[in-house]
Amino acid sequence: MTEPAPVFASGVDNERLNAQLRFLLEADKLKRVLRKNLLVDGSRRENSAEHSWHLTLFARTFAEYAPEGTDVDRVIEMLVLHDIVEIDAGDTFAFDRADAETQAAREREAAERIFPLLPEDQAQRAHQLWEEFEAQRTPEARFARAVDRLHPMVANWHNEGGTWTRFGVPRAEVLKKVKLISEGSEALGAYATALIDDADRRGYFPA
Amino acid sequence: MTEPAPVFASGVDNERLNAQLRFLLEADKLKRVLRKNLLVDGSRRENSAEHSWHLTLFARTFAEYAPEGTDVDRVIEMLVLHDIVEIDAGDTFAFDRADAETQAAREREAAERIFPLLPEDQAQRAHQLWEEFEAQRTPEARFARAVDRLHPMVANWHNEGGTWTRFGVPRAEVLKKVKLISEGSEALGAYATALIDDADRRGYFPA
Repeated sequence: MTEPAPVFASGVDNERLNAQLRFLLEADKLKRVLRKNLLVDGSRRENSAEHSWHLTLFARTFAEYAPEGTDVDRVIEMLVLHDIVEIDAGDTFAFDRADAETQAAREREAAERIFPLLPEDQAQRAHQLWEEFEAQRTPEARFARAVDRLHPMVANWHNEGGTWTRFGVPRAEVLKKVKLISEGSEALGAYATALIDDADRRGYFPA
Repeated sequence: MTEPAPVFASGVDNERLNAQLRFLLEADKLKRVLRKNLLVDGSRRENSAEHSWHLTLFARTFAEYAPEGTDVDRVIEMLVLHDIVEIDAGDTFAFDRADAETQAAREREAAERIFPLLPEDQAQRAHQLWEEFEAQRTPEARFARAVDRLHPMVANWHNEGGTWTRFGVPRAEVLKKVKLISEGSEALGAYATALIDDADRRGYFPA
């Protein structure tokens, strides 16, 4: 835990401000959490902070493919927060079953440590948004998940199969993730299907 | 320029979708633009994509310090886009005067190349938001600028002076930036002042 500078700003509730700073300083660590997938140009692995930024840009740009009435500002608020639990829990590779089994418990524990760094009202809102993302019961949560799932597929296609090729992920396993995309956005699901078909023709999946 | 996969998604305007993808693939390059300041833990330089993510979290967390009526969703939309011009123009160190002189022209050129990758309606909106940020005439643009200026100060304090010490930036120069913070948020301006006073006591500025 990094403590904020021991300073006193005039005209501000400094206890509250310091709680906010503790959370923001802790969040800086997300820049050091590495994902399995590479950048589009293949130069290095992506980290979860820059990934979260790219997802907010995906969500805004693809907003028209969300079901009518989806609150895209809320989707973006969710995406900014959704990976912060990885500071403690690490990034879980979508195709690692052993890791996936313990993921929910690890991430819940992380949420219970990190969000309460914030003042109570903000901690509650952040925790609720994260729970909403996890529960996948609102159009906002499903659209956020859709771009989160589509993003590494795009990176993989541009890296001649990327993690699919490197970790031998069969096409059938990847197709299961398309369902999660279609649930959030029919159009993005159709795109993911086309992308995987093309990747298959190019031999990016193990035979 | 990275071309999207040559695939055809059913039920989608593929020409429009491909324009959106061209922009999103180009935006990936922001992850490779390095800023002068380090991460809070000093382990490496920060890149502009993860910086943009952290700013969206700062803006949301510090929303209560924006002038009443500030549309924080719009601030966040602006922050997600505001550094994309750095893909061509590079990051301009706030205290490099020679670089600052050519910055506006370089960034404008970048905006004119990168935003039009999007479909025309979206290109216009993105360009307008970026212009709004640059013009600093709305409370949203000023609050976005405030968190953008405060962020590296916090990182510098936690790195025993960081870029101030390393590049010999005098306290008086840093105090000029506080004005830009106060214009966006009185409370954050007060915090920045207190932070710089403390940094000065610790000897983080050249004598």
